[in-house]
Amino acid sequence: MSLTVVGSVAFDALETPFGKRDKVLGGAATHFGLSASFFTEVNAVGVVGGDFSEAEWDVFRRHQINTGDIEVVNGGKTFFWSGRYDYDMNTANSLDTQLNVFANFDPKLSENSKSAEFLFLANIQPTLQKGVREQCPNAKFVAMDTMNFWISSAKDEVIDTIRTVDCIIINDAEARQLTDEPSIYKAARAIMDLGLKAVVIKRGEYGATLFTKDAYFVAPAYPLESVFDPTGAGDTFAGGFMGYLSAQNDLSDETLRRAMVYGSVMASFNVEKFGTDRVDALDHHEINARFKEFKQMTHFDDIPFERSAAA
Amino acid sequence: MSLTVVGSVAFDALETPFGKRDKVLGGAATHFGLSASFFTEVNAVGVVGGDFSEAEWDVFRRHQINTGDIEVVNGGKTFFWSGRYDYDMNTANSLDTQLNVFANFDPKLSENSKSAEFLFLANIQPTLQKGVREQCPNAKFVAMDTMNFWISSAKDEVIDTIRTVDCIIINDAEARQLTDEPSIYKAARAIMDLGLKAVVIKRGEYGATLFTKDAYFVAPAYPLESVFDPTGAGDTFAGGFMGYLSAQNDLSDETLRRAMVYGSVMASFNVEKFGTDRVDALDHHEINARFKEFKQMTHFDDIPFERSAAA
Repeated sequence: MSLTVVGSVAFDALETPFGKRDKVLGGAATHFGLSASFFTEVNAVGVVGGDFSEAEWDVFRRHQINTGDIEVVNGGKTFFWSGRYDYDMNTANSLDTQLNVFANFDPKLSENSKSAEFLFLANIQPTLQKGVREQCPNAKFVAMDTMNFWISSAKDEVIDTIRTVDCIIINDAEARQLTDEPSIYKAARAIMDLGLKAVVIKRGEYGATLFTKDAYFVAPAYPLESVFDPTGAGDTFAGGFMGYLSAQNDLSDETLRRAMVYGSVMASFNVEKFGTDRVDALDHHEINARFKEFKQMTHFDDIPFERSAAA
Repeated sequence: MSLTVVGSVAFDALETPFGKRDKVLGGAATHFGLSASFFTEVNAVGVVGGDFSEAEWDVFRRHQINTGDIEVVNGGKTFFWSGRYDYDMNTANSLDTQLNVFANFDPKLSENSKSAEFLFLANIQPTLQKGVREQCPNAKFVAMDTMNFWISSAKDEVIDTIRTVDCIIINDAEARQLTDEPSIYKAARAIMDLGLKAVVIKRGEYGATLFTKDAYFVAPAYPLESVFDPTGAGDTFAGGFMGYLSAQNDLSDETLRRAMVYGSVMASFNVEKFGTDRVDALDHHEINARFKEFKQMTHFDDIPFERSAAA
């Protein structure tokens, strides 16, 4: 199967307690696409400026990502974001956001991108997300992200868009904000009731949880002693999750569970280096080795307790 | 095997968004002992005042907890704590603390309590904990708790005591405070290096993690839509953990993992009602049914990904 992602392609300037970079490749579609490319065929839909160089295109090429639908605006500049992470690596402080060519982003999907069976709507204006979703009537599984900015400024549009997809992948604060429910369990159920098959709630250093009609599943985070740069971790998670589903072409609870773990595996690599550096250099052996570690971290034998065993 | 717990027995006054109680049975040794009693023989060591009535003793009796080492100071009053939980049920606001007879608590262990193979030192002054530990030279597995107050006011004594036990069960903030390490993984390793076999870090609504020489294990929290009263959840967790280990009389990683889950099971019941009400009324069928739910929440098949599976 193939997977289309629509979202930002960007340059990031990053400052963390571990160092500083003035300009690295970033953006939701970039992080998502790279991560998913280890599992399936990926079409990326986005927009960049004339400042997007061969070095950046090479990253996409190395991973056989189809970039035909990444529009190039030659006179324009690529979306630029600058952020700083302090001691608490969970929260980014935005220093500068220059939308540039992304301000007028109007996703145009080729027939190839439209015909993908799996579709991910990364965080962009919700009405644009809905428009893309409508261009892909035959997609069998569509997931979306959103953010606090859209939930506070365009909640009705966000909810309208949610009603057209199968799955949402958001963080716990966003789930609470969207539903006014302090309990993430109640929040997830309320979001499910908008007509979704699955709700994935990302909880940063605490992992991620999956809600479906029949199942509740918890994937822990990988125990990294140092998170180097958390930028893009959420999109990298989503890329592993959707990429694995697309590769398996199956939406059973068992496959969704493994997709949660592959998403967590990919996110754990992403934060080990700046920008896309770590995922760009990954191989399948490393991915499966870490998947096995997740199994080790969570496995226990299902042996019921019997009182007679007590002395 | 048998299990001795040394700690507070108290009356609590509680206020949560779900209601209010003026006087319920509480205290670390109470919550721990009740929880552990579902798995093993428990000796409780503590002190109460003359105001401790038959209704309270009945709770211990119903669960066959040996109360011979709970000293009764007839002219005195039982330790009293009053707290309020607001919307964020993770943090207790202490309204009133009256140590009463607990102020002069000097644990005296009978031969029976001293001869238990498993020992839990609930949160009391660290030098008292160490004294108890020294009264039980033959205990094969000793665990302790502590709290922020002792870490800030008597850190050296806390560390001295840790060096005499096998396992510590504390929350994430305490682990960070004890080691000045913001990463709980680094903090756990630093605490392990004091000579422990196991470090258990409780993370509230995010579950609990186990560190041993060879293993790292994550138990999620049970997805409760409403936490009614979190008082005693940590001690109830420790009671399930230590009670299960004592019953199995085994300290392998596999048994420790299941002990983590039984601890989480017991804690999840504890918070469903005020004080000891829910655990007091539990049965083994309910405990094993929830254990099975934890298995469902975390299980996935260990099937490595193969790229050839992609379309």
